Amino acid sequence: MKRYFDLISPGDFCSFFREFSPLDTESVSLENGLSRVSALDIEAPSPLPPFSRSTMDGFAVRARDTFGCSDSEPALLELAGEIAMGESGRQITLEPGQAVRIWTGGSLPRTSDSVVMVEYTRLLDDTTIEVFRPVAPGENVTQAGEDFAKGQIVLERGRMLRPQDLGVLAGLGITELSVFRRPVVSIISTGDELVEPDQQPEAGRIRDINSITLSALVRETGGIPVRSGIVKDDFTAILSACRQALDKSDMVLLSGGSSVGSRDYTLDVFKKIDGSRLLAHGVALRPGKPTILAAMENRAIYGLPGHAASSMVIFYLLVRPLLRHYMGLETDTGLHRVQAITSQPIPSSAGRQDYIRIRLEWQVPGRPPLAFPVYGKSGLLSPLVRSDGLLVIDRDSEGLDSGSLADVLLFP
Amino acid sequence: MKRYFDLISPGDFCSFFREFSPLDTESVSLENGLSRVSALDIEAPSPLPPFSRSTMDGFAVRARDTFGCSDSEPALLELAGEIAMGESGRQITLEPGQAVRIWTGGSLPRTSDSVVMVEYTRLLDDTTIEVFRPVAPGENVTQAGEDFAKGQIVLERGRMLRPQDLGVLAGLGITELSVFRRPVVSIISTGDELVEPDQQPEAGRIRDINSITLSALVRETGGIPVRSGIVKDDFTAILSACRQALDKSDMVLLSGGSSVGSRDYTLDVFKKIDGSRLLAHGVALRPGKPTILAAMENRAIYGLPGHAASSMVIFYLLVRPLLRHYMGLETDTGLHRVQAITSQPIPSSAGRQDYIRIRLEWQVPGRPPLAFPVYGKSGLLSPLVRSDGLLVIDRDSEGLDSGSLADVLLFP
Repeated sequence: MKRYFDLISPGDFCSFFREFSPLDTESVSLENGLSRVSALDIEAPSPLPPFSRSTMDGFAVRARDTFGCSDSEPALLELAGEIAMGESGRQITLEPGQAVRIWTGGSLPRTSDSVVMVEYTRLLDDTTIEVFRPVAPGENVTQAGEDFAKGQIVLERGRMLRPQDLGVLAGLGITELSVFRRPVVSIISTGDELVEPDQQPEAGRIRDINSITLSALVRETGGIPVRSGIVKDDFTAILSACRQALDKSDMVLLSGGSSVGSRDYTLDVFKKIDGSRLLAHGVALRPGKPTILAAMENRAIYGLPGHAASSMVIFYLLVRPLLRHYMGLETDTGLHRVQAITSQPIPSSAGRQDYIRIRLEWQVPGRPPLAFPVYGKSGLLSPLVRSDGLLVIDRDSEGLDSGSLADVLLFP
Repeated sequence: MKRYFDLISPGDFCSFFREFSPLDTESVSLENGLSRVSALDIEAPSPLPPFSRSTMDGFAVRARDTFGCSDSEPALLELAGEIAMGESGRQITLEPGQAVRIWTGGSLPRTSDSVVMVEYTRLLDDTTIEVFRPVAPGENVTQAGEDFAKGQIVLERGRMLRPQDLGVLAGLGITELSVFRRPVVSIISTGDELVEPDQQPEAGRIRDINSITLSALVRETGGIPVRSGIVKDDFTAILSACRQALDKSDMVLLSGGSSVGSRDYTLDVFKKIDGSRLLAHGVALRPGKPTILAAMENRAIYGLPGHAASSMVIFYLLVRPLLRHYMGLETDTGLHRVQAITSQPIPSSAGRQDYIRIRLEWQVPGRPPLAFPVYGKSGLLSPLVRSDGLLVIDRDSEGLDSGSLADVLLFP
């Protein structure tokens, strides 16, 4: 049995992801762009906003005509008309001493450089207004191109698109997006004891849990899960299932076959696949030590631990980063990292990274939350159901005292 | 113009959500259960695991038969057979001094209470093994029902289902789930200056940004967005669009019509809708002061600020919690809250809550990130594109010094 000190670190494991390339790209409409990843640096084809706009309801003026005015000595300006919403202000040229009525979002006239809020004005008659407060040039105005100048990169390649990003693209008229294809991930469960979740297991059998969990994890990451079903613990059957899955997937997750048991065919199956290269076998973290990674062309094949909790931790730490790499994102877990205070001492062994399931409790605003470890055997799901994330204990640490500040990776 | 001190707090605004009820429920399959919200307390119909299982490859034994054994004085046990994966161990009754071969996940024989790892045994001949380490009762065994006992509540009503939760349901054979319906949200953009994102705007016009952003925000929350298109700034047109939208939605978002301008028909439209009740008009936070909320039966109608950034902040703080309430979740933003250290002084005015767009930079592991404010006019999108979340400054605070620890709501 390999000891932790003989194994590669999670960091070294992830360094193999360089052997894989991001997937090819496809086109999606703006409406379907949420959480997709841009495959291009996107340039602004025109300035945003396209013209200088008022940010207030009021009067477009030349700022210098308001200088020095006050409640007791208002500036008197000639009202030269109104710019209706949707009309261009550029057809009007403000002469000195003139103002035009304008609305929030309206297009500024030529030679006007600012807007006086309606609250600081009074209409004296149909053609004259009083202004009680001076404005500075540019005040209450968004300049043409102030958000994005023409030709500026608005979103970089590898950006996962958020609502505000889609808003920018809408504003620029970019309604078809080039994005990385979503990875297709086949999930194979192996084990003579497994039955489908909708079946009643006979004595000694159990329903397949991992393929449902892994499917959801793939979907949560942005991939497309394909459940390839349950395969018996038989070399030929597993090899055949793997080959079929590789034909139609970017990644194959083989669940249940990477323990030390004599029925562990995973490694032999991986070696038997034409063109496959074994990249890693075993990693110095807990839980999840016996993880296997192989490559076939640009496709990845994982042997995951059969225990539900181990399999899930390994997914977040060692599978999710590669899925993100395939999608053109940064090759990390993409999980939010927060600081928390340990509620009790948490022991660990040097020589491996420990990922402790924890539940967070927020005490007072402005203070990090308390992290309570949720212990339980790695085959159990209930500790995961009660957990908010994973507390990280470094390879060199022998544990944390109560009250220590520690990093926590939050479940999405 | 209302001052902030005259306005209700965001907390008071959200207290109106009590007037609305969670939506009705529907049935989905386990495969489609991710991020849906359980409408029932779910009980375990049978224990999980259904039988006591080995967590190791090895030999099932009676623990007392191994007591006192060691490398120099191994216990000798009679090998009484093997329990194949998928076979019930209950057909075998271990006699004192007997052991049976068992695999990870295998079903324990009657009267066996523990498993010796294969690493601590040696096969002497076909029917005898040596055991070099004693095991305690229960060691290397998951007891029947240890994860969940029969009749135990495994997931509570109002739980948003995560991958591990779906795993539990798979294990229990629960493949059809009762979940709250996803809220349908109609989005209406008003403004004579607006054109669709795929149109080339004439001078003075601009593409509709907010409805794309709001659609994506609704989708991100778990709702179903329906873009009802652009409506002219005309009382009758807006009223008609609102009525049509209410007929087919749980919520209507009216974007662009809640500024102080004379073309602001939103309030009058809301009052004109049969059976509508105005709940709130104006809220003491920045940005987003002029937000309006009305109710019609169990449906909500919002007047949102027209500025893109304000509209987005208001969505996260005052719309998302009601969508979550509709979906049976806790009535909060559901955003991750982290602590960050201010990179510079951040001024604020007492009397309103301030939400400052910030970018986070992680410095050293185990230390909170630095928060850099991303300033910009509320009509601009570029500050939002560069932001990771919103830093919260309380109503009573006049700002934060550089180096202060503050709460940040992370964008999803």
